Amino acid sequence: MKRINYDKLLMIPGPTMVSSEVLNTMAYPIIGHRTKEFGALLEDTVEKMKKVFITKGDVYIITGSGTAVMDMAIANTVNKGDKVLTICNGNFGERFSKIVEVYKGEVIKLEYSWGKGARPEDVKRILEENPDIKAVTVVHNETSTGVRNPIKDIGKIVKDYDALYIVDTISSLGGDYVDVDGFHIDICIAGSQKCLGAPPGISAISISEKAWDVINSTESKSFYLDIKAYRDRFESKKESPYTPAVSLIYALNKALDRVLEEGLENRVKRHERMARATVTGLEAMGIELFAEEWARSITVTSAIYPHGIEDKEFRKILSNKYNVVIAGGQGQVSGKIFRIGHMGEVKEIHILGTLAAIEMAFKELGYNTSGGVDAAKEILER
Amino acid sequence: MKRINYDKLLMIPGPTMVSSEVLNTMAYPIIGHRTKEFGALLEDTVEKMKKVFITKGDVYIITGSGTAVMDMAIANTVNKGDKVLTICNGNFGERFSKIVEVYKGEVIKLEYSWGKGARPEDVKRILEENPDIKAVTVVHNETSTGVRNPIKDIGKIVKDYDALYIVDTISSLGGDYVDVDGFHIDICIAGSQKCLGAPPGISAISISEKAWDVINSTESKSFYLDIKAYRDRFESKKESPYTPAVSLIYALNKALDRVLEEGLENRVKRHERMARATVTGLEAMGIELFAEEWARSITVTSAIYPHGIEDKEFRKILSNKYNVVIAGGQGQVSGKIFRIGHMGEVKEIHILGTLAAIEMAFKELGYNTSGGVDAAKEILER
Repeated sequence: MKRINYDKLLMIPGPTMVSSEVLNTMAYPIIGHRTKEFGALLEDTVEKMKKVFITKGDVYIITGSGTAVMDMAIANTVNKGDKVLTICNGNFGERFSKIVEVYKGEVIKLEYSWGKGARPEDVKRILEENPDIKAVTVVHNETSTGVRNPIKDIGKIVKDYDALYIVDTISSLGGDYVDVDGFHIDICIAGSQKCLGAPPGISAISISEKAWDVINSTESKSFYLDIKAYRDRFESKKESPYTPAVSLIYALNKALDRVLEEGLENRVKRHERMARATVTGLEAMGIELFAEEWARSITVTSAIYPHGIEDKEFRKILSNKYNVVIAGGQGQVSGKIFRIGHMGEVKEIHILGTLAAIEMAFKELGYNTSGGVDAAKEILER
Repeated sequence: MKRINYDKLLMIPGPTMVSSEVLNTMAYPIIGHRTKEFGALLEDTVEKMKKVFITKGDVYIITGSGTAVMDMAIANTVNKGDKVLTICNGNFGERFSKIVEVYKGEVIKLEYSWGKGARPEDVKRILEENPDIKAVTVVHNETSTGVRNPIKDIGKIVKDYDALYIVDTISSLGGDYVDVDGFHIDICIAGSQKCLGAPPGISAISISEKAWDVINSTESKSFYLDIKAYRDRFESKKESPYTPAVSLIYALNKALDRVLEEGLENRVKRHERMARATVTGLEAMGIELFAEEWARSITVTSAIYPHGIEDKEFRKILSNKYNVVIAGGQGQVSGKIFRIGHMGEVKEIHILGTLAAIEMAFKELGYNTSGGVDAAKEILER
C-alpha cells in the first residue's frame, strides 16, 4: 500500500479536520466499558451533548455513522403503513425516504429542485391535507447541495400537529444555530465528524417526551438500533448496551469541551464568517453559487463549475499539487458542482489557502481568474 | 469528572489492551473517506481480514459493535417465519435468538446449561428433524461463560444441509483456530476489540457464495445494515456506503499487521499457553473452573467464586488497590463467577500479575490461598 499523506487540508463537508488536542486523546489506552470510570465519562459526554443540542430531553451516543442514527429515528417510530412526510432537496433528505421505505412506511415526499430551500408553508399545507402524518423529516444542512433548510420555522408549524419532528443536524450542529427544545425538535440527529470537530464513527440522538410516547408504543424494527435498549442500559448503569467505541468517546468528549469553551454563539459566528469569506472569494472569481441565496449553508459552500472545467481533473490538481481536498457533487449534480466544507476547526488560513489553490487549479485548466483571495481577505480583515 | 486512570491492566474479555503501536495510529489526522488513498487503505484492511478469517469469500468492515454485525447477518438472510436454529449456552448465543425474533423468524433453540459446550450430534438431530431450517447460529467463544463451542465439527454437519452456517467469532478470531472456508462457515462475524488487539467500534463480516444466494433473494430488514449497500459501494469504489470510522480503520489495519507478523498459528499457541497458565494458577489456588473441560475457551477463563467472596467487593479491590480489571458474571451467573480475559496482546507478565493480585484480594476477603503464581510460572517456564 502506498504511504498515506495525512497532512492535506481537509476541506470536504465531513469528516473534517480534527484538532491535535482531540486526536491525541485517542492514543490513550482503552478502559473497560463496564467500569464506573467509563460510565462517568459517558454520562459527562452525554451532558455536554445536551448542552450543544440545547435540550432537556434524553440524549444517547451510538457507535455508527450518522446514517445509523437516521435509521434509528425511523426504525423506532414508524410502523408499516405510517405516513411520513420527507422533505427532499438533496441526497440526505432522500435517504430518509429510503429508510422509511425499508420499514414499509408510506412516504409523502415534499420535493424541491436541488439547490432550493424548503418552504415552511408547503409543510403546513401537506400537514393540513394529511392530519394522520406520523412524522416529518428534514435535513437542516443538506451537505449534498449546500442548502440550509429553515428548521426553526418548520418547527413552529410541526409543533401544532401530532407528527413527530425529526431533524438531521449531522452537518450543522456546532456550526449553525440548532436549539432542539426551542425549535420543537422531537428527534435530533448529529454526527461526530462535522462541525463538532471529532473523528467519524459515533453519532448522537436526542429524544423528546413526545417522541418517547411514540417509541414506547412502537416495536423497534431493529435490534442494534433499538433505542429502548440504549435508554434502559443508560438509566440503570450509565452504560451502552453493546461495546462502544471507547477511543471515539474520549475524542468526542474533548471535542465538546472545545465547542463549549468557544461558545455556541461564537462558533456559529465563526462559521458564518468563514462562509462569507468563501462565498465572496468564489463570486469574485466569477463563479456561480449553487444554493439559492436565502437558503445558503454556512458550513458548506456549493458552487457551479465554470464551463470547461472537468471535476475530477480539477480536484486531482487541488489534491495532488496543492494538498487541498474538496468535494465534488453527488447524484444528479455529480461533475457539475464542487463543495467546500468550512466546518469545525476551519479558520482563516484554511479558507485563504483553499481559495488560492482553486485559483491556481482553474488557471492550469484554462479558466484564468484571480481576485478571490483578495476579496476573502477583505471580509476576514473586518 | 474524576480523572481517568488509563493504565490499569485490562484483563476483561474485551475490549482488550491495545499496543502503543496501534493506539498511536489514531493520533494521525483524518483523511477523506471518498479519496483513493482511503480506498486503498480500506481494501488493504479487507485483504488482511480475509487472511485472518482464512477465506476467499467477501469481507466487509462495518462501523458498529460486534452486535451490529450479528444483527446484519440475520437482517439480510432471515424472512418472517424462517426457521433459525440458535445454539444457546450463554448470553451471546441467546442474543442471536433475540435478533431472529426482531425479524419475526421462528427460533428453534438448542439450549445447554451455561458452562457446557454444544454437541455436534444434537445439531445433526435437529437439522434432520427440520430440513427447512434456513440458518444455524453459533457463538464460537461464549465470552459470557468461558465456553468454546466446536465450530469445526458443527460445520462438518451443517455443510450437508441447505441451512446457512452463521458463526460469531467476535472473541476468538486471532486468538483461537478459525478457518472460515475450511470450517464451511457462510457468515463469519468478528469484532476489532478482542483477540485482534484493536480498539472497539468496528466489526467485520465474511460472506460465502452460499450466503450470497440467500442474501440476493432476501430483502434486507435494515437500512444501515443492508449488506448489499456495502457490497455495491466496495465493488464500485472501494468505499463504504456511509462515513466509516477512519481512525479505527487506521488502528485495525496496524493491528492486523501485528497479527499476521506473529502468525495465526503462533498466536493461537500463545493464547493456549496464557490460558493454561491462568487455569493452572487458579486451580492451584483451589478455585473451581466454570466451563466444562473439553469445551474450555482459550481466550477467556471463567471461574466460580469460593464461598464467601462477594463479586463486587473482590473486583473493587482488584481494580482500586491493584489496578487489575477483570469481569464478573453476566445474567444467570452474575455474582457467581469471575472471568479473566487473556486475549490479544496478553503476555506472561499480565497473567502473573493478575494471579498475584487475585491471591492478595482473596486473602483480604478471608480466603487465604497461595501457589497460583508459582503454578503458573511452572507452565510459563516451559
